[in-house]
Amino acid sequence: MTLPAGFERAMARDRDAVDARLQAIATARVSDHPRIGEALVYALAAGGKRIRPLLCLWTHDLCAGRENAATRAAALEAACAIECVHTYSLVHDDLPCMDDDDLRRGRKSLHRQFDEATAVLTGDALLTLGFELLGSVDVPATVALETIRVLAAAAGTGGLISGQALDLELTGKPDTTRVEVVERIHERKTARLIAAAMETGAVVAQPGDAGIRERARRAGLMAGSAFQIVDDVLDMTGDAATLGKTPGKDRQAGKRTYAAAVGTAAALEAARERVAQALRELPEAAGTPLAGLFDFVAERRR
Amino acid sequence: MTLPAGFERAMARDRDAVDARLQAIATARVSDHPRIGEALVYALAAGGKRIRPLLCLWTHDLCAGRENAATRAAALEAACAIECVHTYSLVHDDLPCMDDDDLRRGRKSLHRQFDEATAVLTGDALLTLGFELLGSVDVPATVALETIRVLAAAAGTGGLISGQALDLELTGKPDTTRVEVVERIHERKTARLIAAAMETGAVVAQPGDAGIRERARRAGLMAGSAFQIVDDVLDMTGDAATLGKTPGKDRQAGKRTYAAAVGTAAALEAARERVAQALRELPEAAGTPLAGLFDFVAERRR
Repeated sequence: MTLPAGFERAMARDRDAVDARLQAIATARVSDHPRIGEALVYALAAGGKRIRPLLCLWTHDLCAGRENAATRAAALEAACAIECVHTYSLVHDDLPCMDDDDLRRGRKSLHRQFDEATAVLTGDALLTLGFELLGSVDVPATVALETIRVLAAAAGTGGLISGQALDLELTGKPDTTRVEVVERIHERKTARLIAAAMETGAVVAQPGDAGIRERARRAGLMAGSAFQIVDDVLDMTGDAATLGKTPGKDRQAGKRTYAAAVGTAAALEAARERVAQALRELPEAAGTPLAGLFDFVAERRR
Repeated sequence: MTLPAGFERAMARDRDAVDARLQAIATARVSDHPRIGEALVYALAAGGKRIRPLLCLWTHDLCAGRENAATRAAALEAACAIECVHTYSLVHDDLPCMDDDDLRRGRKSLHRQFDEATAVLTGDALLTLGFELLGSVDVPATVALETIRVLAAAAGTGGLISGQALDLELTGKPDTTRVEVVERIHERKTARLIAAAMETGAVVAQPGDAGIRERARRAGLMAGSAFQIVDDVLDMTGDAATLGKTPGKDRQAGKRTYAAAVGTAAALEAARERVAQALRELPEAAGTPLAGLFDFVAERRR
């Protein structure tokens, strides 16, 4: 893949900014309760790809410019809020009663490193933190409230919750390979939160062109779909060291995946087509780091 | 106890309004995912005392008058949001890895009626729902945002989360009877959310006297402390049929309780003193249903 000039640098710089802010947020909670604070620091430690925060930040930059210091600080907070909610979903999904996963981001999953009760509570704390951050973001109240609505809808029973519930419920059932079912799970479990990352980036930017918010949301759904398709492929073809999580789990668990339904090559082609579609929704992103991130999502190897 | 005239009627009427609205909220989620929707209906079914929603509604009424239809509708939404967050904390606290409780509100706890994964997800959904409801409440954006900040602070690591974490952590430890430790757990686990119920009631009422919000919060901390002290006493003296949950669990689990530290009679006296203090914070509540609710909290038998 050919990434736009400056992509790697922009990615490293903004990922560092997100990592630093997340660590500050977690560290500030240690005084509330040392063990939960420590677990928050662990859960939010660098190591994740930070795709969602970068999508939020770079959608902001597309709408308001990277140099818009006031709204960019707000976008960083929103980006961290989204990552908190994403991380909460990983922590709870890894629990023994859910996907029962021991490995996450190359380290022990949270309930293995600490214990189950701490994992439940830390997930709860991360979800609460997402809304707390958006509630205090330095933008007009109507704008902050809008980001809260967007996040609540993506995280709620129409999004993350039913995505995971469907995934658990249909695991091991005979209709494993029906692509529509897989797509429904992907949309709720992954794409809606990725769309929310882009939409909140647009919302805090307060662009003159109101239509860009809806286009950003649709682009996010496409990018999110591509992301999850590639995730499924990597589960089939990757190794634990590269992935930082247990590979082959999906098949072992009898999970329905897109790659299993249509084959690896067709799945990767579909992922490429989705990110092309995302770029068609947001043609102004061409040549920017955001377009590079779309490509990265489709071509990544971990 | 002598309750204000009309107290029982006001309680029944507003509890019915809360129950009806909560059922409507839960039922609307069934189409998102039938099992999670069903679990939400189960979790939010009538049977709870609805102390927090009533405190929210009646603090509103104290500040803006019951007849203020616009803000009262907003107070009902806020009351339901608080109850969703309270219910989430019960569902997660009952999990096997936490307090491992089979009985709640006279029925099987959620993970016993459904399964653990559904209980984790339904708790997550209830927490998200709390913020979703406040995000859409029909008041000026600054007011809605304020309620979100109040709820996030009460539910976060400074409140519910560390309250439960401390409770788990100190259970069975030798310093069980130190009253200060018990009080710290009570404040975080119970009193802050009860204070948030009253504070959000005051916030949505948008009273001319800004000071009443802070007084309502302080009164809530007192009432919350009284509530938890009585809860501990009932755990020692009540039976499952009256309580709707397993009695004697605290002692069995080696939990620190106020009643164990100072004795039942002194504990009940302390509870009465706290609600008297709550009323001194809000003298305008004298003779209203809110004052009756304070007394109810201190004198209740379930």
